[in-house]
Amino acid sequence: MQFGSDNQTGASTRVLETITAANVGHTHGYGEDEWTERAVDALRETFQCDLDAFFVSTGTAANTLALSCLVQSWETILCHAQSHIIIDESTAPEFFTGGARLVGLAHGEGKLSVRHLKNYFLSAGLDIPHNPQSRALSITQATELGLVYTADEIAELTFVARQHNLSVHMDGARFSNAVAALDCAPADLTWKAGVDVLCLGATKNGCLAAEAVVFFKRDIAKQFVHRRKRAGHLLSKGRFYGSQIIGWLQDEHWLELAHNANLQATRLSETLSSIPGVRIVWPTQANEVFAVMPKQMAVHLKSVGADFYEWGHESLPRDVHIGEDEAFIRLVTSFTTEDNHVDNFCEVANGHKLTQAQLPGSKEKNRNACGKEKETGR
Amino acid sequence: MQFGSDNQTGASTRVLETITAANVGHTHGYGEDEWTERAVDALRETFQCDLDAFFVSTGTAANTLALSCLVQSWETILCHAQSHIIIDESTAPEFFTGGARLVGLAHGEGKLSVRHLKNYFLSAGLDIPHNPQSRALSITQATELGLVYTADEIAELTFVARQHNLSVHMDGARFSNAVAALDCAPADLTWKAGVDVLCLGATKNGCLAAEAVVFFKRDIAKQFVHRRKRAGHLLSKGRFYGSQIIGWLQDEHWLELAHNANLQATRLSETLSSIPGVRIVWPTQANEVFAVMPKQMAVHLKSVGADFYEWGHESLPRDVHIGEDEAFIRLVTSFTTEDNHVDNFCEVANGHKLTQAQLPGSKEKNRNACGKEKETGR
Amino acid sequence: MQFGSDNQTGASTRVLETITAANVGHTHGYGEDEWTERAVDALRETFQCDLDAFFVSTGTAANTLALSCLVQSWETILCHAQSHIIIDESTAPEFFTGGARLVGLAHGEGKLSVRHLKNYFLSAGLDIPHNPQSRALSITQATELGLVYTADEIAELTFVARQHNLSVHMDGARFSNAVAALDCAPADLTWKAGVDVLCLGATKNGCLAAEAVVFFKRDIAKQFVHRRKRAGHLLSKGRFYGSQIIGWLQDEHWLELAHNANLQATRLSETLSSIPGVRIVWPTQANEVFAVMPKQMAVHLKSVGADFYEWGHESLPRDVHIGEDEAFIRLVTSFTTEDNHVDNFCEVANGHKLTQAQLPGSKEKNRNACGKEKETGR
Amino acid sequence: MQFGSDNQTGASTRVLETITAANVGHTHGYGEDEWTERAVDALRETFQCDLDAFFVSTGTAANTLALSCLVQSWETILCHAQSHIIIDESTAPEFFTGGARLVGLAHGEGKLSVRHLKNYFLSAGLDIPHNPQSRALSITQATELGLVYTADEIAELTFVARQHNLSVHMDGARFSNAVAALDCAPADLTWKAGVDVLCLGATKNGCLAAEAVVFFKRDIAKQFVHRRKRAGHLLSKGRFYGSQIIGWLQDEHWLELAHNANLQATRLSETLSSIPGVRIVWPTQANEVFAVMPKQMAVHLKSVGADFYEWGHESLPRDVHIGEDEAFIRLVTSFTTEDNHVDNFCEVANGHKLTQAQLPGSKEKNRNACGKEKETGR
Repeated sequence: MQFGSDNQTGASTRVLETITAANVGHTHGYGEDEWTERAVDALRETFQCDLDAFFVSTGTAANTLALSCLVQSWETILCHAQSHIIIDESTAPEFFTGGARLVGLAHGEGKLSVRHLKNYFLSAGLDIPHNPQSRALSITQATELGLVYTADEIAELTFVARQHNLSVHMDGARFSNAVAALDCAPADLTWKAGVDVLCLGATKNGCLAAEAVVFFKRDIAKQFVHRRKRAGHLLSKGRFYGSQIIGWLQDEHWLELAHNANLQATRLSETLSSIPGVRIVWPTQANEVFAVMPKQMAVHLKSVGADFYEWGHESLPRDVHIGEDEAFIRLVTSFTTEDNHVDNFCEVANGHKLTQAQLPGSKEKNRNACGKEKETGR
Repeated sequence: MQFGSDNQTGASTRVLETITAANVGHTHGYGEDEWTERAVDALRETFQCDLDAFFVSTGTAANTLALSCLVQSWETILCHAQSHIIIDESTAPEFFTGGARLVGLAHGEGKLSVRHLKNYFLSAGLDIPHNPQSRALSITQATELGLVYTADEIAELTFVARQHNLSVHMDGARFSNAVAALDCAPADLTWKAGVDVLCLGATKNGCLAAEAVVFFKRDIAKQFVHRRKRAGHLLSKGRFYGSQIIGWLQDEHWLELAHNANLQATRLSETLSSIPGVRIVWPTQANEVFAVMPKQMAVHLKSVGADFYEWGHESLPRDVHIGEDEAFIRLVTSFTTEDNHVDNFCEVANGHKLTQAQLPGSKEKNRNACGKEKETGR
Repeated sequence: MQFGSDNQTGASTRVLETITAANVGHTHGYGEDEWTERAVDALRETFQCDLDAFFVSTGTAANTLALSCLVQSWETILCHAQSHIIIDESTAPEFFTGGARLVGLAHGEGKLSVRHLKNYFLSAGLDIPHNPQSRALSITQATELGLVYTADEIAELTFVARQHNLSVHMDGARFSNAVAALDCAPADLTWKAGVDVLCLGATKNGCLAAEAVVFFKRDIAKQFVHRRKRAGHLLSKGRFYGSQIIGWLQDEHWLELAHNANLQATRLSETLSSIPGVRIVWPTQANEVFAVMPKQMAVHLKSVGADFYEWGHESLPRDVHIGEDEAFIRLVTSFTTEDNHVDNFCEVANGHKLTQAQLPGSKEKNRNACGKEKETGR
Repeated sequence: MQFGSDNQTGASTRVLETITAANVGHTHGYGEDEWTERAVDALRETFQCDLDAFFVSTGTAANTLALSCLVQSWETILCHAQSHIIIDESTAPEFFTGGARLVGLAHGEGKLSVRHLKNYFLSAGLDIPHNPQSRALSITQATELGLVYTADEIAELTFVARQHNLSVHMDGARFSNAVAALDCAPADLTWKAGVDVLCLGATKNGCLAAEAVVFFKRDIAKQFVHRRKRAGHLLSKGRFYGSQIIGWLQDEHWLELAHNANLQATRLSETLSSIPGVRIVWPTQANEVFAVMPKQMAVHLKSVGADFYEWGHESLPRDVHIGEDEAFIRLVTSFTTEDNHVDNFCEVANGHKLTQAQLPGSKEKNRNACGKEKETGR
């Protein structure tokens, strides 16, 4: 019943075996090895285009190094108000960009839309040195709220971005899950839809520590090698990244892993939604389930070993209200989630008998309320 | 009819004369001269306490150098959503703090209140490296919307700030106007009310280029001299700043100048509010008047030489709506504003006859609408 | 007998009068005023080309803002080992460039030469992300050691720079003195000799606080306005800078002022060199005299009110050795230095009778040795 | 015959097995897992003290994050002129410290000594904002030139550092090799000798990607967690680092690996030194051999598959001169180097018959000179 985060697993067996296979013999250091080269080739094949790609160990490094190639330090980056780059990466974006600013949009809504961008540009400061100007748009796919953007939705957003001379970054920490969910070609969700650079997350979905920064617009990439080095993200034993990515992409292993996570999330969401007192907040489209349940139910689940996080109320749609006796929680499935993990969780939730007094909204207060916890990672 | 900004005037005669008087003979450079020393003494007398003070040429330099002494680069600064530091100083705060983040509060309201701070702390991220933590509060006195905080209001804000271990910065670009308006001791509005560092603006109110960064909490000031030097703000001929501040503070010259500006703003506000079709948005408490008027009236005023800016609608209270035929403008008075400047402006405004078709709300569109303009400075 | 620095004077009368003249009436803020415009025009006329120019208050701001337009944060700037940017501006270059690095060349020599550049490029790290690559050359004119580069010498340096794809910055804090000394057109020493951007210092030579950043290569200048604003160096009352520059350039006032400083330095150097026990270290070509004299002589001069600094031995030519009983001092003349200042100084120096025991090299130690002092500024 | 760098191997079998063992089941993310905890415990045991430790993926990240905890952005760091932080890490130190400066000492000498520090402090700028002041000393153990500092030598350096209020950082990318060479307790070379923070490199000596930043002075460490996160160096699957360090430290595996590397270096050095025309530059004390050999010999070695780098002449002692027909090369051994690798290399070198014309110093030029190559890493 481990639904804390998809980063709480290890690597898939296949990925681990490829790391081991790559461990033999001498290679050149700093990414000038055969494994790194082959990994980039695998990405070119996967995305069906001639791209540049670089590997780093964390999503924060990938996102912020990529963004630092898109904006000057006196410019801004538009993103969703709940995006990982603005909520969960400390001030890394400011650090890497030399002080550029993030602008969070779409408060209280699940996804960015063209409307948010247009409204922003209407009220944005003028193009004078006093007012920082936007020069990049960051889209998260799948979103931090478990939703996915269709290829058309992405194309609409990037069209408006392009009109205002913005580059487009995609935070793809859960890109695998989005591709698996939408069942379309990776190319359709990225460069064909106007994305300039994708941070393709592999860590959450089967690798140990490997994120690919994929530049479809290759002229942006020129400065990346310098920025990566000076940020301490150029690994000497590059084959560690290369081998992970190769094992992960081969034979659509990455999508197979993502399909399992998505499937289990759907099962979890469907069963939970049928339990009295439980509401699903956003449609479950990838591998995250956001639910409101009686606090006592959440407390009970934790007490029997279930792992998950309560989530921040500021992300909620404006028309969703959480009662004092309710808990707003996030459940994340992964490539290792099995049927019985989901079933057990739902059984415990369902089996939790609520007395009249414990029903949300009742006057008697819950004594052992499930407190706010760390919302680390995604 | 120059109401564009209080920074569009020159220096007061008295200030200019003091600069000239200070021009004689040799002095040591870099602020180790007698004029600088005397200026700091004058500030100590004005604020009735043993403070440290440093001088720079712009409000942006003063604010952002001061803030950089209060927070680490992975922390945040709370401020009003319309504050100058977040709207009008490019990404200077990020630059000077090494990438700390501003968090704008109180959208759609005129002033920060304890309620805004408490709500923020309720929903703020936890104290883990992922989520940047607040370490400073910035209050603007008088505010960008022409309002003033009473000593009690400031004390309430700083009390909550202190509870959360935040230092308190005051952007006093128009501190003179606030002191003149509230008719209380400068000490009461600053250190006695819990302010740690005040950026005291002299430029808008009679100097050529002089802002004092006044540290009431002196241990914060230690790093300032290094930060000022490496930002290129340590002037070699320090007497230029020192003499301005001396001339400005002597005999309460600064308050005399501010009183004139405030008085003329009050006159302007009162007369305008009596003109049909004109609304005053916030009470006129210092030297700025925010008014809504028929667009045609604004266009006409400009056509006969009046100078003022249209202002951003995002600053408006939520219950104030601007019609398509209306203009939302800001008028700023200064120490040089005279009765006849105000009278002329109001006469022109009043004399502008609106035909039925031009009345705000009428269906016929205005053809020569007053376009959005630069909102430089305050 | 004030020879501490040329920044210890006030402004020339003419400059001060122009400031006063500019103080009348309203203007637009932030450098969009007529005075600023006219100052740029005056620079275009002076340099006989179509340049971009911006004004700031200090040499450090001018130099480091200019340099930040020339290099990326992972690149380096070549300069003389004794240059002001590497010795006297704290870590301002690193701050403004986001962490680029200065590389000091020509240790123990008075000027940069083509040989230094060529040697550097021979041993420089390869063009890989590990090794920072040079992208700019900074030349100081006149140098920190009181020497001047001829137009030919500058052209030779910039030729080599260009071969290696370096932009060329000139720190012209004492450019006036160099032009006056070389008696050639400002254009010949700058853009015609391959300089891309000149920081033209006016403060040391007659202004209160005004430095012009002059871009001959205008495409570099695009980002300057943003960098200036976010560094807090965009003055609201721009006419303060504009008027100084206008008054300073008009009728070759700036050269007239520099001629006086140079003339007095030459007089000082010549007379001093005839005094027993005194040696002049570098030829006196501008307005600075570097001399070695008996310590007792220096102590005596100070005791009767002479003002000057002892200078760092690391700047000395390798073949110049300073005895334990000697002092190495810098004397700077300015536009206000008069014949009698120089004459008095030399008389006191000359009149200082050395007993046998006090002669440099004698075994008896001096008891009241002239201690090391602040080497602030230039 | 792979002597390019010790980072060109994979991981030791034991380390790889521990990674695999750690791959099972769920753990908390971001270093709050049992493996990370156990790794820190293992370090405490190894160094016999109560330390704080954090893990990152590269030596550059370890060094520069550690240094950023020691100095303010307006201060400097003293280090050897050939140190990795100044030569091979781009401008990472500037990036992480927000613009602090490295000062390279001991040009042309193999190690830092007390004399270098004392000389530096004699000529350093005064403690005024103009001149950046030193606040940290960085020592490399083993050095980039294959030498080791004894415990006494370190204690002498840190004593002088402490006198000037400097913190002490040790770049221990090859600390294993130094400990193995000196055969003393890790504690004796670090905290007992006055080191505040050690960057303990494990990657070069048997891990895939793991460097420990070890704070002996624990109050410095407080800010590290924030700096690591905002630099993108906080790994979600922390057990990847933890397991490597555990496998590496257990049963003195790390020293066993280092002993092999050192032993082979000694063998290589001894045999090479007996070959006519070959000189060893510095004593071989750890796992690096620096040799001068006829260019033709180097070319021949490469032609039969030997891998090594030519090294920069600027690192050479002043009394060592390289003839035009000679090559200055670096050979690095590792935990995987075997007897026959060394033997084969020496045989090929020895067997290379030099005709009279090919002897170094002969007038006939070599046609196939061994060109300068990438000097990546160490």
